[in-house]
Amino acid sequence: MNDPLKLLNGKPIACVGAGLVGAAWAIVYARAGCAVNLYDANPAVLASAPERILSQLGALHDHGLIDEPVDRIAARVRVAASLADAVAGARYVQESILERAELKRALLSEIEALDDGQLIVGSSTSGIPSSAFASGLRMAERVLVVHPVNPPSLIPLVELVPSPETSPDALAFARQLMLACRQSPITVNREIEGFVINRLQGVLLREAWAMVKDGVASVEDVDKGIRDGLGWRWAFMGPFETIDLNAVGGVADYAQRLGPLYQRIAASRDHADPWDDALIAEVEAQRRELLPRDQLVARAHWRDLRLMAFAKHLRSVEES
Amino acid sequence: MNDPLKLLNGKPIACVGAGLVGAAWAIVYARAGCAVNLYDANPAVLASAPERILSQLGALHDHGLIDEPVDRIAARVRVAASLADAVAGARYVQESILERAELKRALLSEIEALDDGQLIVGSSTSGIPSSAFASGLRMAERVLVVHPVNPPSLIPLVELVPSPETSPDALAFARQLMLACRQSPITVNREIEGFVINRLQGVLLREAWAMVKDGVASVEDVDKGIRDGLGWRWAFMGPFETIDLNAVGGVADYAQRLGPLYQRIAASRDHADPWDDALIAEVEAQRRELLPRDQLVARAHWRDLRLMAFAKHLRSVEES
Repeated sequence: MNDPLKLLNGKPIACVGAGLVGAAWAIVYARAGCAVNLYDANPAVLASAPERILSQLGALHDHGLIDEPVDRIAARVRVAASLADAVAGARYVQESILERAELKRALLSEIEALDDGQLIVGSSTSGIPSSAFASGLRMAERVLVVHPVNPPSLIPLVELVPSPETSPDALAFARQLMLACRQSPITVNREIEGFVINRLQGVLLREAWAMVKDGVASVEDVDKGIRDGLGWRWAFMGPFETIDLNAVGGVADYAQRLGPLYQRIAASRDHADPWDDALIAEVEAQRRELLPRDQLVARAHWRDLRLMAFAKHLRSVEES
Repeated sequence: MNDPLKLLNGKPIACVGAGLVGAAWAIVYARAGCAVNLYDANPAVLASAPERILSQLGALHDHGLIDEPVDRIAARVRVAASLADAVAGARYVQESILERAELKRALLSEIEALDDGQLIVGSSTSGIPSSAFASGLRMAERVLVVHPVNPPSLIPLVELVPSPETSPDALAFARQLMLACRQSPITVNREIEGFVINRLQGVLLREAWAMVKDGVASVEDVDKGIRDGLGWRWAFMGPFETIDLNAVGGVADYAQRLGPLYQRIAASRDHADPWDDALIAEVEAQRRELLPRDQLVARAHWRDLRLMAFAKHLRSVEES
């Protein structure tokens, strides 16, 4: 199934929450050809969304990352007058509201009142398991986490996290929808803290902070270690494929030879200590030396341009 | 100091060990304009080195990654007839022999007999602290680890790891030499197991293996999590810069908000368990499903092409 419209039975997708994440999701779905109903309970956020979407579509167009005229894609996004206007008749809801379980639960109760018995809801939450806000609802079997890396309009990875109540059909639908919209879905089989992505980032960050705390390396040098070293392979291969290709006999050969080293590294570190105030102040001071506070916004813009250039690079190598 | 020849006082660099790593170092130094004396105690390895170097230079040329004719660079690499022929008169030795401390110690004893009192030795070792093979030698203060990511001819990151005996001058020389040869040196202030790079890779790998063991995610999905998600930013920013730009108030703001999450993630994992045989077999089986054993070599070649395409991408965005 590569046509999202077939999967959706011609129905629209409701994007509820039109902030940074919700607007980027609207682009993902509209770019793939879907009709999008966009809604936000905050009128100011909703009012600014179409212009933000147009601006981001323009940037994607300038980098050669969209194939259709910007206006044609933008025209697929309709600003809805109410939650009911957005959700009634939709096949799928992408929820991207504030990260508070009680708000999500309240929203789901409202959505349930509009449910035709088919509606599937994916939550963009980065950390709240959907059982925390969907459990006990009639539609709980059609709710799951559909967590993007920001912005999903640029970075393809999406974590699908079913709750114990989520049905296999709802999970399969979300997976097919992501594939049809050219995202890269992975399945997190259990509602584990941090899901997969933040766990991987989390262990790396903790070792990074610990090395700074111990005076082993500076913030700048740890960053170079990834940027100028490990990040080169991780830009197009995962860590398993990396080590699979780093030993003549593949990953088992690698694990036999280097497993003990990594075990010693892990055993040498107490991972449970928090980042204390002194360490946070030290890392903050080193970062502000490298990037003054008043340049944070400009650097974030630079990052977005680099992400688009990277996306274009991937397109060109994957097409060649 | 951007001219390596001034730093070297016109003297050559001796690359001792001409396998994969040593040959790639010869390219790094010759490409920067240095005269290289290449030696390997194994005649077959030494005999094949010039052709391997030419072939790699050709690939770099084809990807637009070198600015001079291949032959002119290759002509700077001289195959030495003996260790003495390679080292006598050199300013710096890049040691890239087998990863065994006793072999490195024996080599250093031979090198010390040729030492003019100025010679500095950098070891390519990925895991042996130089104190394990240089301690007690007269020239110990001029020995340190200069550990590349493979191949250094492509990936710029180099870890400099002084031993307690290494002099500040020797460390500063190695750092200047790396910068002059367009590598990206970082300093590992203590001889910590795994240095910086392998510690970062190690904690990420251990969490990856643990998630597969627990059935949280498949090998393929963990890899996608990096390749299609986290790796996008780490391709051009380190983890500290990433989080510094991911909170309005910078890294301290981020740490206050998300530190507790990462602490809970860390606390939820016992890091000291080894990778057992059943787990290794499971990961191996999943990888062989994705990439049959007889395609490992072809895929490693694909990886090298992707690394070159990535290097070209970085060149183009950094020049624009």
